[in-house]
Amino acid sequence: MASASTPSGVIPPVCTPFTPERELDVASLERLCAFLLDAGVAGLFVGGSTGEAAYLTDDLRTRVLQAVVGFAAGQVPVVAGAIDMTTTRVIAHARAAQKHGADGLVATAPFYSPTHPAEIAVHFRAIRRAVDLPLLAYDIPTAVHTKLPSDLVGELAADGVLAGLKDSSGNIDGFRAAIGATAGVPSFRAYTGSEVHADLALVAGGHGIVPGLGNVDPAGFVRLYEAARRGDWPAAMAEQDRLRRLFALVGVGDGRMGLYSSAIGAFKAALRMRGVITHATTSLPMIPLDDRELASVARHLEEAGLR
Amino acid sequence: MASASTPSGVIPPVCTPFTPERELDVASLERLCAFLLDAGVAGLFVGGSTGEAAYLTDDLRTRVLQAVVGFAAGQVPVVAGAIDMTTTRVIAHARAAQKHGADGLVATAPFYSPTHPAEIAVHFRAIRRAVDLPLLAYDIPTAVHTKLPSDLVGELAADGVLAGLKDSSGNIDGFRAAIGATAGVPSFRAYTGSEVHADLALVAGGHGIVPGLGNVDPAGFVRLYEAARRGDWPAAMAEQDRLRRLFALVGVGDGRMGLYSSAIGAFKAALRMRGVITHATTSLPMIPLDDRELASVARHLEEAGLR
Amino acid sequence: MASASTPSGVIPPVCTPFTPERELDVASLERLCAFLLDAGVAGLFVGGSTGEAAYLTDDLRTRVLQAVVGFAAGQVPVVAGAIDMTTTRVIAHARAAQKHGADGLVATAPFYSPTHPAEIAVHFRAIRRAVDLPLLAYDIPTAVHTKLPSDLVGELAADGVLAGLKDSSGNIDGFRAAIGATAGVPSFRAYTGSEVHADLALVAGGHGIVPGLGNVDPAGFVRLYEAARRGDWPAAMAEQDRLRRLFALVGVGDGRMGLYSSAIGAFKAALRMRGVITHATTSLPMIPLDDRELASVARHLEEAGLR
Amino acid sequence: MASASTPSGVIPPVCTPFTPERELDVASLERLCAFLLDAGVAGLFVGGSTGEAAYLTDDLRTRVLQAVVGFAAGQVPVVAGAIDMTTTRVIAHARAAQKHGADGLVATAPFYSPTHPAEIAVHFRAIRRAVDLPLLAYDIPTAVHTKLPSDLVGELAADGVLAGLKDSSGNIDGFRAAIGATAGVPSFRAYTGSEVHADLALVAGGHGIVPGLGNVDPAGFVRLYEAARRGDWPAAMAEQDRLRRLFALVGVGDGRMGLYSSAIGAFKAALRMRGVITHATTSLPMIPLDDRELASVARHLEEAGLR
Repeated sequence: MASASTPSGVIPPVCTPFTPERELDVASLERLCAFLLDAGVAGLFVGGSTGEAAYLTDDLRTRVLQAVVGFAAGQVPVVAGAIDMTTTRVIAHARAAQKHGADGLVATAPFYSPTHPAEIAVHFRAIRRAVDLPLLAYDIPTAVHTKLPSDLVGELAADGVLAGLKDSSGNIDGFRAAIGATAGVPSFRAYTGSEVHADLALVAGGHGIVPGLGNVDPAGFVRLYEAARRGDWPAAMAEQDRLRRLFALVGVGDGRMGLYSSAIGAFKAALRMRGVITHATTSLPMIPLDDRELASVARHLEEAGLR
Repeated sequence: MASASTPSGVIPPVCTPFTPERELDVASLERLCAFLLDAGVAGLFVGGSTGEAAYLTDDLRTRVLQAVVGFAAGQVPVVAGAIDMTTTRVIAHARAAQKHGADGLVATAPFYSPTHPAEIAVHFRAIRRAVDLPLLAYDIPTAVHTKLPSDLVGELAADGVLAGLKDSSGNIDGFRAAIGATAGVPSFRAYTGSEVHADLALVAGGHGIVPGLGNVDPAGFVRLYEAARRGDWPAAMAEQDRLRRLFALVGVGDGRMGLYSSAIGAFKAALRMRGVITHATTSLPMIPLDDRELASVARHLEEAGLR
Repeated sequence: MASASTPSGVIPPVCTPFTPERELDVASLERLCAFLLDAGVAGLFVGGSTGEAAYLTDDLRTRVLQAVVGFAAGQVPVVAGAIDMTTTRVIAHARAAQKHGADGLVATAPFYSPTHPAEIAVHFRAIRRAVDLPLLAYDIPTAVHTKLPSDLVGELAADGVLAGLKDSSGNIDGFRAAIGATAGVPSFRAYTGSEVHADLALVAGGHGIVPGLGNVDPAGFVRLYEAARRGDWPAAMAEQDRLRRLFALVGVGDGRMGLYSSAIGAFKAALRMRGVITHATTSLPMIPLDDRELASVARHLEEAGLR
Repeated sequence: MASASTPSGVIPPVCTPFTPERELDVASLERLCAFLLDAGVAGLFVGGSTGEAAYLTDDLRTRVLQAVVGFAAGQVPVVAGAIDMTTTRVIAHARAAQKHGADGLVATAPFYSPTHPAEIAVHFRAIRRAVDLPLLAYDIPTAVHTKLPSDLVGELAADGVLAGLKDSSGNIDGFRAAIGATAGVPSFRAYTGSEVHADLALVAGGHGIVPGLGNVDPAGFVRLYEAARRGDWPAAMAEQDRLRRLFALVGVGDGRMGLYSSAIGAFKAALRMRGVITHATTSLPMIPLDDRELASVARHLEEAGLR
């Protein structure tokens, strides 16, 4: 069971634009894909946390994937999240994604019930056995309430189960430990999901970035990545510094709603303000941003030179 | 929008028996329902955490519900869990449950992304609006990582959104606060999901018990409930004391696997040892109990007078 | 090494009144002791969390203890908190407390560095060996970030190390488990530190109550305890219900300050309003209550019939 | 109120050697200071977590500080931890440290009772007002269970309250945010307490390292720092990589004892094996390492080329 590599570079987790009635807005989704591809991203990640995967019915997930695969038309690989609570449910999503043209899969540790590393290993092994696509582990403790142990990542990489890692844990020590633990598997790809220490993650040997904020400013993240690739750390850090300040827009609604609701609302509002998508509607039960919060999003865009 | 009451008493969250190939074992499921009804339970809760709902495909969830509704045949109400991450996905399960004969619904707060009370309110209101069945809120912070605020429960009860609460938070102060906050809604039903302080929850005004361990010893929980109802607290507490000791069987595998995996494995092993179900198979990625752990389950049954 | 019993009943953790310059206000402290003794408390607990022990210099702790021991003059036992991070520091406080007339000691698990049950056992054994006074374990995870395992409490009780437990964990299942684990030591005393489920803790076999709110309404807690002792649960629960509502005063400043700062400020403000102490000053770095918050304290007192 | 700077570079938190009877072993302490100074450290930090400050009586803290100040004799600055629960107690330690020759102070946020940023601000301001020495904030959430907000650090730096930060939070995003928030105060010094991402902390603009492991291999950390200072990131990262592997020795006893007990035991055992100190005795209630664990420490030293 050989694992192909997913590409190095910036692979944004694509937002899912809706109409005000919460139908899929395919035209906006295609404009968003074009916007990302124009900026030079290396792949597209559909059905991630930023794509509101947890909020979409199975049918809607499939339609989003079909639209993105169709639009990308082979220009860059499309990887698909198979986000669900446990093994059998994840496998069902993974099979649907394979059927609809995904080039790779992204799955988290099991969640809902408290879990254990022995169960996480069974989980990823069963998914990989069921669907023959490169499988990336998605380490996102804020959602699944488990941190993937780096030695387990190393073991599953060595066994050809995992082709890569998307690390959204915020823990750069663990990211580095995972890179160390997979050093014997040259095809393995370690991506950071961090918007705010992407530069350090690349210093530490990461292969790419999967930033939610990359929807709003894909060119910025591509510049950061390219600077890092040519070893120009001052340029990479200057870009990171600008993006760190921009990233503060995720908190515009925090307190009045959850941070996720605020972040997705801010990403979509920013995309609307930048003329990429038509509506900033988010899924139920998220709370819409109010006028004051939208004004704050606009200010963040201006300060980052994006408006 | 008037909310009918669900019954007072013991409503066990029914285990889901499998064949060794992880197919639904309908004969075992029917024997389990008979075993529970014989013991005098007031209702059956299908698709809860103990029923491995988080581990079942949509199709399997439906077949379990159909089997239980069919077997119960109106003798007691059947309430169905609609366990999923967010509003739209929960509504899809809720509609399926209504179609297949559920008498009530059980839903948690949204999970996966961090949430907020304002979003929890939107969530329950949207579910209730979408499906006209009594709706019980399932407060299970170990799974969803939010505690339902008691004042929100009160508000949603007053508005006819929530017909009841299943409190598996382990926090008896919060349970009591929820009972206080819903005192103005006489039809509201507050159930404890605790196996170990059911007596105190009834002292504090609770209407019933939804105990996972009630699969293994339904007669014990019915005795506890009946003693409490007639005000015989010493008898209720003596029964509780025996059940507390029995409940220690949930930990037989803990450390080698997660506590949930250990608990469900122990419940099913106990049901097999008691002759109720045929196999103790659990869902992927749970770890099966080993011989030493099974022997410990057997000892717990013996000490509780169940073998 | 035989452990004497501490008394059953209500043992309030005595507040420490200050002058506006944060000097000890001995006259107010004596009036507070008189107020508590008049209400029928079974003992006085000096140097607990409510007494701001963590905020007092060693010298001030000693002067508080001397004042209370002197005023109590043997009418009831005085137990003293020896609150500090680790064994040797706790022993120093314990020796000082013994020298100044304490009848018993209260110590938490070690804190600051993360700890382990094996270390907690060494800790209590060393304290008990160093100072020959009845030793109560103080289980307060919100402060020390460890929950005392009930089996460890049982082991240390059986060995004569612990004479009792003050359980401020909020976890009534653990309280009950500790009572079960110490059933073989008839002299052992299990107190709840909960203001809001004292009735249930007594139902479950507890010997007494150590309520911070007992400074404000000692008579209420004594009534609750006496009703429970004579088996009049409806009366105990009615009293508990009133005290639960009163206890909400602890949150008057929450959000603008920490909950502890709010609670201690509210207790002292209430004692001043009831004419027991002269000033409501709290220790640095706590934030004083503002006028709106003080008005809320007053309202809570009125609603509880205390003003 | 002007704040002098503490030096850039490596400032190890000095271990406290004991005799087997847990008396201070002054000769070992002086040999340890000589070992650190020979390696080129920029300062000595006495009374930190690694120095078992939380475990030492006031008298012992003073004797440790006197010994180190006397030995250092002005060659490098000596900063002293004033580790205690709340403001008044910290001020007492700070005054003692000033009296006995400390060149700077290190204090954490208040702990024991849950706290709030408004209280943390009052705390540091009061300490700074009470003792005229450069004051470093010690951000150590594993001990004090609060994360210092970076904007608060910025505000206190701007007001001359804080002269620096020791960040042992493990959160490099927060470290970077604190550096950003204090950019307007050129004398401010930001140290990382991380043994495993010191290189990245220096990439991100940190001024120095305060590593517990720096007791065992001070030369390694000085090499890392010097490489970073001259911009030789590959050399810095290679050194970091070796030190990361060495740092695994902190876990030799974990599980049988707490991680802190294991780490301090391992540091002291390594120092004994390297011939620097005479005994590896730790404070009560820590658990001593056993032979298997000591052999593991020896192996780690060998693999790091230190034995």
